[in-house]
Amino acid sequence: ISSKLPDVGTSIFTVMSKLALDEGAVNLSQGFPDFPISEELAEEVMKAMKAGLNQYAPMPGYPPLLKAISEKVQHTFGWTPDPATEVMVTAGATESIVCAILTLVKEGDEVIVFEPAYDSYQPCIALAGGTMVPIPLNFPDYSIPWDQVEDSITSRTRMIVVNTPHNPSGAILAESDLEQLERLAHKHGIYILGDEAYEHIIFEGKKHHSLLSRPSLKPWAIAVFSFGKTFHVTGWKIGYMVTHPELMVEMKKVHQFLTFSVSTPMQAGIAAYLSSGDHYSGIGPMFQKKRDLFLDCIKGTDWKPLASHGTYFQVVSYDEITKENDYDLAIRLTKEMKVASIPVSVFYHNRTDHKVLRFCFAKQDETIIQGAEKLCRILK
Amino acid sequence: ISSKLPDVGTSIFTVMSKLALDEGAVNLSQGFPDFPISEELAEEVMKAMKAGLNQYAPMPGYPPLLKAISEKVQHTFGWTPDPATEVMVTAGATESIVCAILTLVKEGDEVIVFEPAYDSYQPCIALAGGTMVPIPLNFPDYSIPWDQVEDSITSRTRMIVVNTPHNPSGAILAESDLEQLERLAHKHGIYILGDEAYEHIIFEGKKHHSLLSRPSLKPWAIAVFSFGKTFHVTGWKIGYMVTHPELMVEMKKVHQFLTFSVSTPMQAGIAAYLSSGDHYSGIGPMFQKKRDLFLDCIKGTDWKPLASHGTYFQVVSYDEITKENDYDLAIRLTKEMKVASIPVSVFYHNRTDHKVLRFCFAKQDETIIQGAEKLCRILK
Ligand SMILES: CSCCC(=O)C(=O)O
Ligand SMILES: CSCCC(=O)C(=O)O
Repeated sequence: ISSKLPDVGTSIFTVMSKLALDEGAVNLSQGFPDFPISEELAEEVMKAMKAGLNQYAPMPGYPPLLKAISEKVQHTFGWTPDPATEVMVTAGATESIVCAILTLVKEGDEVIVFEPAYDSYQPCIALAGGTMVPIPLNFPDYSIPWDQVEDSITSRTRMIVVNTPHNPSGAILAESDLEQLERLAHKHGIYILGDEAYEHIIFEGKKHHSLLSRPSLKPWAIAVFSFGKTFHVTGWKIGYMVTHPELMVEMKKVHQFLTFSVSTPMQAGIAAYLSSGDHYSGIGPMFQKKRDLFLDCIKGTDWKPLASHGTYFQVVSYDEITKENDYDLAIRLTKEMKVASIPVSVFYHNRTDHKVLRFCFAKQDETIIQGAEKLCRILK
Repeated sequence: ISSKLPDVGTSIFTVMSKLALDEGAVNLSQGFPDFPISEELAEEVMKAMKAGLNQYAPMPGYPPLLKAISEKVQHTFGWTPDPATEVMVTAGATESIVCAILTLVKEGDEVIVFEPAYDSYQPCIALAGGTMVPIPLNFPDYSIPWDQVEDSITSRTRMIVVNTPHNPSGAILAESDLEQLERLAHKHGIYILGDEAYEHIIFEGKKHHSLLSRPSLKPWAIAVFSFGKTFHVTGWKIGYMVTHPELMVEMKKVHQFLTFSVSTPMQAGIAAYLSSGDHYSGIGPMFQKKRDLFLDCIKGTDWKPLASHGTYFQVVSYDEITKENDYDLAIRLTKEMKVASIPVSVFYHNRTDHKVLRFCFAKQDETIIQGAEKLCRILK
């Protein structure tokens, strides 16, 4: 069978979560929380179902949710997107990403992607008929090598994908990075796709620099967000994008035929939940505590954490422990030490191995402590 | 902005539902029920949320739901698809359709589509880089002109899309149609995509002839189904596909990056609901009553219903009432008579106008009666 994505294998998240389950290992691999969700949020979804909100939502989103998103952007980034023309709800950030790429990237177009990169970007580009141009982030601070970006731009460059806070590294874009993006977008006519799924998970009072915070980027920016990551409901698959009205017209044409619309009771439930108070500001501090707990547990050992400013992942170097490659080590840790992680090399097209593993700390404190304990046994 | 789908406009369903709302008209246009859903089904979703099933489901589907689907296929079509390798849950039948097309159709491929055709097929083919080859169904029985199909096949023909029961006409495929599909699939190596969203809505004890009912079609068939249409929850966006394991491997690669997975609590809720008894066999008779109510209301008037064997739509000829084109009439009926319908010409690429409108009778009896009454006023 000759298909469009011959080279895609089973995703590392599926592989490691399944192995963790089979091995009875503590699962610090795939990024999802293991703690309960807000009861209020669940109640709101039930109310929506009981109120009969079970038929198609309007294709671009349930109007009260579009409005709540617009108000949130106003509050966070200082301007008010028009709910009707600049906001769209999608089946997770995942659908927003594929929608933006399928809409804008054409046969032969090039898309610049920074590695380590989330696993969906490249296949989406391939589906659209484009080519990924991978640029490795600087190691170990995962900053963007701007000279190299400039050198990589050709007449076929259609889009640059950025991800901030960055999965897997936890790096965040600085104001100066946005300036560079703005300069390149205007100079070369390049769209900037911003995967900002972890916008609220940011530490030490640092600021999330969103594409949406730069007015002059607006005609070029597509910013993508995730209620799944924000409210611990990764399985609900509700995300959204915010973009310029002229771009949004085209995005809606594609969304209409990818999923048409997104779960009405869940959209209504989230909208009601958002209207009941500030549910955002506690998220960063809550996850920072969990990160610090994980860091405390491995402190003073040869597991060396790299700096992380956001996301619910911590990247850890094991260079002083073993010279094994990271994939083999991740498998071995899961089988022998009973703790699962993600080898960061899988986020590089050429499997660059910096001897680092990614651990997810969106877990109950006991899970974090247990996982870290098992991790430390390898040192003995 | 040069995008992938420059020619797509707002879908007729969105246009007419909005107009109906604005005009305070009875909405018999867009296909969705206006009656309450099963309380038991809603309860099961709530239980799943409370039980903590709020994180990512496995990418191809929640295992108990995959199993329930497999058992249902066993019961209906007499063979048991392997839940792990032949079934996949998607964001509605919509995502199954785009997934199958994006997976298999390549730049320059041709896809045969019968008109009137559901509005998503052509844009999906365009997104994949292929070309739609439209073939008009015979009027007024909406049967397939097989000679013309044979003549339309070229070396680039990659797929034939069939839809049974057929939206908008209510026609259903006969055993002999499946024999033709089987012959063409084997002779020319062509995939058959079967949109069977309305499989349970079929009248007078007629049989739904599914692609899945022909074993020798298996290597070529992708059959697509909808829980939204079946259980009156179009807004939940849960559908599925069943296909050959070798095809499914490729479909999963694409699904993984379109949506990754589908709402866990809703999948779990549907799985539990399915295990609690037979919820399928009442559906056909329930909708037949509604169809008959609608037919009774327009009986003896110059609104002439065409034969309909399935779906929750009734196509009606107005040829003896006015010579207006169907689009203008549908708009005028909504504004002046306060009843909204769908002009069938929009399902043809060249807007072929047979002077027929489509009415949705998936409505409470009072809604049907009210709508039909308003309709009959035009006769006076
Ligand atoms: C969709 S599975 C991947 C979850 C995730 O975002 C991650 O683990 O990086
Ligand atoms: C996704 S809106 C269209 C609903 C439908 O299937 C129809 O009205 O034909």
